[in-house]
Amino acid sequence: MCRWLAYSGSPIALAELLYKPRHSLIDQSRHARMGVETTNGDGCGVGWYPDIGGGTDGAEPAIFHATGPAWSDRNLLELSRCVRSPLFLAHIRASTGTAVQQSNCHPFRYGRWLWMHNGAISGFPELKRDLALTVDPTLYPFIEGSTDSELMFYVALTFGLQDDAPRAVERMIGTIEAVAQRHGVPDPLQMTVAVSDGHRLWAFRYSTERHSRSLFFSTDVRTLRTLHPEIEALQEVADGTRVVVSEPLGDLEGAWHEVPESSYGVVEDGHGELHTFSPLAP
Amino acid sequence: MCRWLAYSGSPIALAELLYKPRHSLIDQSRHARMGVETTNGDGCGVGWYPDIGGGTDGAEPAIFHATGPAWSDRNLLELSRCVRSPLFLAHIRASTGTAVQQSNCHPFRYGRWLWMHNGAISGFPELKRDLALTVDPTLYPFIEGSTDSELMFYVALTFGLQDDAPRAVERMIGTIEAVAQRHGVPDPLQMTVAVSDGHRLWAFRYSTERHSRSLFFSTDVRTLRTLHPEIEALQEVADGTRVVVSEPLGDLEGAWHEVPESSYGVVEDGHGELHTFSPLAP
Amino acid sequence: MCRWLAYSGSPIALAELLYKPRHSLIDQSRHARMGVETTNGDGCGVGWYPDIGGGTDGAEPAIFHATGPAWSDRNLLELSRCVRSPLFLAHIRASTGTAVQQSNCHPFRYGRWLWMHNGAISGFPELKRDLALTVDPTLYPFIEGSTDSELMFYVALTFGLQDDAPRAVERMIGTIEAVAQRHGVPDPLQMTVAVSDGHRLWAFRYSTERHSRSLFFSTDVRTLRTLHPEIEALQEVADGTRVVVSEPLGDLEGAWHEVPESSYGVVEDGHGELHTFSPLAP
Amino acid sequence: MCRWLAYSGSPIALAELLYKPRHSLIDQSRHARMGVETTNGDGCGVGWYPDIGGGTDGAEPAIFHATGPAWSDRNLLELSRCVRSPLFLAHIRASTGTAVQQSNCHPFRYGRWLWMHNGAISGFPELKRDLALTVDPTLYPFIEGSTDSELMFYVALTFGLQDDAPRAVERMIGTIEAVAQRHGVPDPLQMTVAVSDGHRLWAFRYSTERHSRSLFFSTDVRTLRTLHPEIEALQEVADGTRVVVSEPLGDLEGAWHEVPESSYGVVEDGHGELHTFSPLAP
Repeated sequence: MCRWLAYSGSPIALAELLYKPRHSLIDQSRHARMGVETTNGDGCGVGWYPDIGGGTDGAEPAIFHATGPAWSDRNLLELSRCVRSPLFLAHIRASTGTAVQQSNCHPFRYGRWLWMHNGAISGFPELKRDLALTVDPTLYPFIEGSTDSELMFYVALTFGLQDDAPRAVERMIGTIEAVAQRHGVPDPLQMTVAVSDGHRLWAFRYSTERHSRSLFFSTDVRTLRTLHPEIEALQEVADGTRVVVSEPLGDLEGAWHEVPESSYGVVEDGHGELHTFSPLAP
Repeated sequence: MCRWLAYSGSPIALAELLYKPRHSLIDQSRHARMGVETTNGDGCGVGWYPDIGGGTDGAEPAIFHATGPAWSDRNLLELSRCVRSPLFLAHIRASTGTAVQQSNCHPFRYGRWLWMHNGAISGFPELKRDLALTVDPTLYPFIEGSTDSELMFYVALTFGLQDDAPRAVERMIGTIEAVAQRHGVPDPLQMTVAVSDGHRLWAFRYSTERHSRSLFFSTDVRTLRTLHPEIEALQEVADGTRVVVSEPLGDLEGAWHEVPESSYGVVEDGHGELHTFSPLAP
Repeated sequence: MCRWLAYSGSPIALAELLYKPRHSLIDQSRHARMGVETTNGDGCGVGWYPDIGGGTDGAEPAIFHATGPAWSDRNLLELSRCVRSPLFLAHIRASTGTAVQQSNCHPFRYGRWLWMHNGAISGFPELKRDLALTVDPTLYPFIEGSTDSELMFYVALTFGLQDDAPRAVERMIGTIEAVAQRHGVPDPLQMTVAVSDGHRLWAFRYSTERHSRSLFFSTDVRTLRTLHPEIEALQEVADGTRVVVSEPLGDLEGAWHEVPESSYGVVEDGHGELHTFSPLAP
Repeated sequence: MCRWLAYSGSPIALAELLYKPRHSLIDQSRHARMGVETTNGDGCGVGWYPDIGGGTDGAEPAIFHATGPAWSDRNLLELSRCVRSPLFLAHIRASTGTAVQQSNCHPFRYGRWLWMHNGAISGFPELKRDLALTVDPTLYPFIEGSTDSELMFYVALTFGLQDDAPRAVERMIGTIEAVAQRHGVPDPLQMTVAVSDGHRLWAFRYSTERHSRSLFFSTDVRTLRTLHPEIEALQEVADGTRVVVSEPLGDLEGAWHEVPESSYGVVEDGHGELHTFSPLAP
């Protein structure tokens, strides 16, 4: 399993959220509280849309992937201090079996799209071939790593992620569950997923067993400022700024709201909404 | 492209062949003479069958894979000095596009089998999906990396490598060429391949265009000893000892014989043979 | 801080002790119970004397150092399975500030000597220069990394480690404490140290504040066998076989004895002794 | 030995100079023409001053260091595309013996200062201790790696680099040559060095034997534009923009001028000067 964080709002230096909070993502890499493992030391990554005049302006995102633990990665620290972005995704990995290598680090990128995942597909070695077959042949060559997470991304792309993200994720889930059923694998999917096209940011929470990994979002920046005075940049960001996290960056009180089961949040231009969703059988 | 070396004979320390020769594999990692590239710095690996009373005795091989260049890898040096083996494969990689990561390092292993490759499949991104589909579903989950080389191994395993290695390689080649033809990719395959089950060692040389990467074998250990006084261990090995290499470990004269086009050599119990072979269409 | 394990006895595969025990060193890399940190993910290393006819026969040790966490290092697993040794040292690192790099991985080697350390020198950045100056100028060029641990090794070598190990360690401690006093650094030293020349294995436990990191040794192999049926190799080793560990490989009862404060154990030819020692001011 | 590039002028993306030129620094990592080695695959690094309104505005530089070869480093590529800077240093390393690790990657940083080096100190293992002793005790703790290059930086800092860079370098050279003479090491120093404080950029060329590694600078951006149409960003930079390189980024004709022996160039606010200098004995 893993931990992740996604940000959408006024441009800030990545380090403000990755390093400064009391229970920052970097702290979570050694001391996760709500994860299956306390240690998330199997690589890390960030993907960010460049700050172009305060927004993203349709530019392609950049990514940084490293195989070592986030807590000792000096390049990540340097980068996080100097890169400012209005929309970024950050991830620390705890492998569920696949190799520790850059091509397995999140977020994954396809064109202007970024995708990251916490969770797993049960029985993945057994299901992998059938899932790979559902990927559009023109997309297949872009798969670089060996994780379930990246394959989920390409299945979702195949089902129209770029046109209708929630519906593509619904079909992706339905397909995984159908393939698992065919192979007799119960409760196959655990996921919290963040995905973005540079304008919108979606965050999905789902598990077949309806007992999903934790996922929280901030609603009111003012509460967040009060709870996290150590994150200086928050004092200056616009009110519509949102943070979505696997686990809160400090204490829970007031600032962090749990995404309900089988729901997703979407943030666009400082406006956020919550919706429920359901698997869509293939 | 890459460079490789395979050894079968009396147990010796790996370093005798990897480091000591004037134009050793380590030297070839920076100064290859016959390769497409002079630099082979995209990872390295060795696979060896343990020395059990002078032979391999059916034991599973061990492997070491590293992503850095061979010339600066201290673990490879340490290991090569202390590990003695009667049968080993060593490889230095020059990526033809796929990621530099341990799961893409040669030799690849399946059970008691080792496989390594120099060359490439042209248009691999385009052909990969169809080739992956030919892999037996029960073998598919064992594919860990993203290279053409590893996929060739699993296609060959699918076609009975463990029962009849030359025939399986013939079918593997035929399949690759058939898939390429379907996609309109001309001259798809370049390969020299070494494969072993711990008893026999096969070395194949082939290319669709019949202009294959270089491959040499030693026939007479006495000539090798004269040409390479710097390889001390050679002075004491049995007469049937053989070395197969992408390029000679020093000057050519006398000791190194070229494997002909569309041919393979096989060594077993100190006895070697050369055979021709042909692609077998699926 | 770190965790380590040292073995002296009948030759066994390293994996028997590194991977098989319930609370193995690899398990301790994520779930240390007695350390300052639960995570020891800043590199790992093993040093082993080759098995030459059941003993070490004066040969130089080999080392393997890796910068990633032990739990995901495939080379360490491969190596540990195939290397058999009558005397080896293994270490998992939790950096106290210095860089995560191979030259900072334990054990350190000088000729036939191996050294590894758990603990730290307080105020090391401030004390480092004065300590480096105490190192014999002919030894100085062999320092490769930047840790306090390696520098301690070279200070001990300067004070005659190769002639009288306990006395050299006493002088090393006395020197560190004298330098610290000069700089006004209180309680400067925390250490458990393992050191070997290939015949003898010493394990020291000391801290200036007399509240040292944990250190345990096995006395009776028969008890160890009963407590650890999962370590198959233990069933066949000679009775004088000893294991020294930062923390027990399972439950404590009976098999593991704590090394007292300011004491060291030494094992030679299956015979072990415990002694007290004291810092020797320079 | 190594290759490097330094840039001062209108802010551009690092990739414009690192990747786009026909004989770019990345190309030089495999195919250097004027170096001692054709391969510079022992790590790479960039240091850059952030673009603050078209200038550097006194901000501290950021650095990126990687141990693998530049040609396969995906993070370097990502970073180089998205980071824009008016003043940056880039380096590809060919180790002359010291370990391949991030702490040995150039450029080195101290506060607002960056330093990188091509060349070597002969007999460095022998001279290292005496040179380390000349470093100011308050600077000593900041030395992180084991190279001659970083030690030269700290010797120069000790001699007032921050007050008078050329004079500090003169004294650094004089000190190295004096220490070498004491140890009987002839012709100890080979260096081209780039150093910056974020405003000024100095480039020194010197060797004791007066036969120094190559070093070139661009004078006229208009000629550079004509010679390098593939570097699009050059079309838009200010006329005072300068590039200093170990070897030209393409053909020599007209655009690249050799820095004479025992000379340095300094660039500040689009104005450049060449001066001679001499070692200053301690």
